[in-house]
Amino acid sequence: MLDGEVRKKLTAIVGESNVLDSEENLIVYSYDATPNYQAMPDAIIKPGNRVEIQDIVRVCNEHKIPIVPRGSGTNLCAGTCPLEGGIVLLFTRMNAILEIDEENLSVTVQPGVITLDMIQAVEEKGLFYPPDPSSMKISTIGGNINENSGGLRGLKYGVTRDYVMGLEVVLPNGEVIRTGGKLAKDVAGYDFTRLMVGSEGTLGVVTEATLKLIPIPETKKTMLALFDSLEGAGKAVSSIIAHKIIPATLEFLDQPTLEVVEDFAQIGLPTDVGAVLLIEQDGPVEVVERDIAKIAEICEHIGATSVQVAKTNEEGLALTTARRAALSALARKKPTTILEDATVPRSKIAEMVRAINEIAKKYQVEICTFGHAGDGNLHPTCMTDSRNEEEMHRVEEAFSEIFAKAIDLGGTITGEHGVGVMKSPYLAWKLGNEGVNAMKTLKFAFDPNNIMNPGKIFAKETKKRVVVQK
Amino acid sequence: MLDGEVRKKLTAIVGESNVLDSEENLIVYSYDATPNYQAMPDAIIKPGNRVEIQDIVRVCNEHKIPIVPRGSGTNLCAGTCPLEGGIVLLFTRMNAILEIDEENLSVTVQPGVITLDMIQAVEEKGLFYPPDPSSMKISTIGGNINENSGGLRGLKYGVTRDYVMGLEVVLPNGEVIRTGGKLAKDVAGYDFTRLMVGSEGTLGVVTEATLKLIPIPETKKTMLALFDSLEGAGKAVSSIIAHKIIPATLEFLDQPTLEVVEDFAQIGLPTDVGAVLLIEQDGPVEVVERDIAKIAEICEHIGATSVQVAKTNEEGLALTTARRAALSALARKKPTTILEDATVPRSKIAEMVRAINEIAKKYQVEICTFGHAGDGNLHPTCMTDSRNEEEMHRVEEAFSEIFAKAIDLGGTITGEHGVGVMKSPYLAWKLGNEGVNAMKTLKFAFDPNNIMNPGKIFAKETKKRVVVQK
Repeated sequence: MLDGEVRKKLTAIVGESNVLDSEENLIVYSYDATPNYQAMPDAIIKPGNRVEIQDIVRVCNEHKIPIVPRGSGTNLCAGTCPLEGGIVLLFTRMNAILEIDEENLSVTVQPGVITLDMIQAVEEKGLFYPPDPSSMKISTIGGNINENSGGLRGLKYGVTRDYVMGLEVVLPNGEVIRTGGKLAKDVAGYDFTRLMVGSEGTLGVVTEATLKLIPIPETKKTMLALFDSLEGAGKAVSSIIAHKIIPATLEFLDQPTLEVVEDFAQIGLPTDVGAVLLIEQDGPVEVVERDIAKIAEICEHIGATSVQVAKTNEEGLALTTARRAALSALARKKPTTILEDATVPRSKIAEMVRAINEIAKKYQVEICTFGHAGDGNLHPTCMTDSRNEEEMHRVEEAFSEIFAKAIDLGGTITGEHGVGVMKSPYLAWKLGNEGVNAMKTLKFAFDPNNIMNPGKIFAKETKKRVVVQK
Repeated sequence: MLDGEVRKKLTAIVGESNVLDSEENLIVYSYDATPNYQAMPDAIIKPGNRVEIQDIVRVCNEHKIPIVPRGSGTNLCAGTCPLEGGIVLLFTRMNAILEIDEENLSVTVQPGVITLDMIQAVEEKGLFYPPDPSSMKISTIGGNINENSGGLRGLKYGVTRDYVMGLEVVLPNGEVIRTGGKLAKDVAGYDFTRLMVGSEGTLGVVTEATLKLIPIPETKKTMLALFDSLEGAGKAVSSIIAHKIIPATLEFLDQPTLEVVEDFAQIGLPTDVGAVLLIEQDGPVEVVERDIAKIAEICEHIGATSVQVAKTNEEGLALTTARRAALSALARKKPTTILEDATVPRSKIAEMVRAINEIAKKYQVEICTFGHAGDGNLHPTCMTDSRNEEEMHRVEEAFSEIFAKAIDLGGTITGEHGVGVMKSPYLAWKLGNEGVNAMKTLKFAFDPNNIMNPGKIFAKETKKRVVVQK
């Protein structure tokens, strides 16, 4: 519960109706989309503008009260779980699309705008915002920026970071900085724009963003390639890229994922194959036709058992929608679904998937794997039950080994979900103690009272590194 | 001159032959490509590997000796002028291309490799590294990274920052961090990769870099569109983008620049027109043909007096080579050439060029303007004589007013050259005191002894902001 004086100050800033601290409200914001993490905040505050946020931050800094900025809470790293209490900063009142600038190909938004709403608004003008996290129907742009969200189009188009041109940020001391602008080139000072992107709310509060847009691709085609084995699918991925084709989407689903997704979506996906690649190309008609034909040829040459090109846009959309539903589909199988995002260099995909399967077998846990094969970003997903402590222990051991393997292959512990609480014990595995120390130096310089989303990214203890027996 | 003990320590690290401190050597490294800045270093050190660099940094940190990392010194912000003495760190011995990874579309290099050498090496494999600073024949990748170099392809392909996937960096405390990797997606921790890119050697020493490559475009076409007026050219730029075409290159040259470039290159450029757009499109044959035809139509519709498509690749290359020679051509006219890079949102190009011409007239200085119209990155270039103090004062006043105007239009003081010494008195105009303070906080946290390239980015005093009379 907030101290009475603090509550009074915060209420004076945003008004009584924008301070929520009933038991029911606190429970609603005590967790996010990540299983097994819950902690009660002291209040939920809904600011209406940047000046109110500055005032809130100053009060919190003075009284050393944690601030957890939260969009829709769809993240998968417990990044918005208010671990150390304090206030949850909600952006529901700051959800305006401020400007779509067709001459400079940019859109300026408040952080609370829903990703898909913004995407649809710019598409009406013939413009395109490529980052498409699977949660985009409910996620916010502010959340996407804080997590540097990825999606299915990362290989060809990059991630959120690549589309943030400028930010307005309230720093932990209450000062406002404005970074970048509607500028394709700007080297005036350190790149605070990209420092803020993916900083998971630990360095400041994003209050406005200018995003880069591109012309919408003329057309799009979708295809499925079926393979007997993981190796076949992995080889096809490498071979497509080696032929200098960069598809818009190059998704991988293993057999167990396929079975679950088909059961959920009922669109006639094959369930008796080793692995499937879902491939999309977009762009000018001639190029799409040519690339899709070439990709089909490559997949057949590698030994695909079947290659099917979607005959209509609706058929293509059904396929990608089914893929986007993978998490929901898997979540139906068991009480607890843990979706990870170990990422490796693209050339190591088949090896990584094989290792995941061996590790799952070793620890007798059920793991399906799907993900963005084109950019090496896999989603090994464990269906389990958090009430079964013994099993949960095995799940944790299995994921530790998966992270260790990813790093051995030149990969990372998280490709697009963020570190949050969940991955923090593994961060030093990727960055080394020197890397984590450098981050702490930066964090402490900006936020000496550690008010911004405390308990995230930096772990109390690094987990002991798994040494995989060779 | 280095203290005897320090010299001994440094010699023990790199060997006598890699410590240069004769008068002639010190003079050679006392300046870079920027006019009017010169300061003597105490020694030039040529390390052979990362471990030597760690040892050097530790010695310098202990003895508080400035370190100025230097590639080929082609920067235009006096970024490698050893303002406060100390050592110049030269990477001539660390110029290897370590790996071209065709499966993961990446190249890993040491910082001293010449940009064009690397570009040619990857092109032999059918791969493409788009950033192309005009200095690429002699610049190094390390220098490009420190300055976040741009070039002619920024509009379509982005700048150096967009192609750096991972770095190895020696921090001012001598520790090594490794950021990123051969990974299209990686959100494990703060984005130190992009923090280092463009930090002008003030935060650490880059010792290795992994860069992203893309498939080389199939084909390329070049065209020239001539206009009576600046406004016509500006309108054409906006109209091309509004038609959802993103050319690979969209360069602008005003009449005085054209005259000087033609005098230098002798390739039959028109010299009696108001302005010229040099436009290139690359990609699949059909798309290039279609885009070039459409662009020609747009330019004619806007009122171009002539539109000429290069008939051969050689003719196209001659045109872009002439454009790349603009600085050299202008430099022949007067003893001192000051090339600036005020940048504005693309839609403000015509207004900015008009303002530059008015300001030049007001201060009676000679300024030609050319640059990257597609990304709003202009190069107003003043031909003057640094021995004429009175004129130099007027030049400085004129550029102050140009920077103020760029910021008024939503632009920046530097699009691709960096802040260095030259632009440091103006940095707060773009970032505000809050922004500069945030940067100082970061700099001090990483480099409390201020050994890394001291005197750069942060000015002793911010220049008084020009208030333009309306």
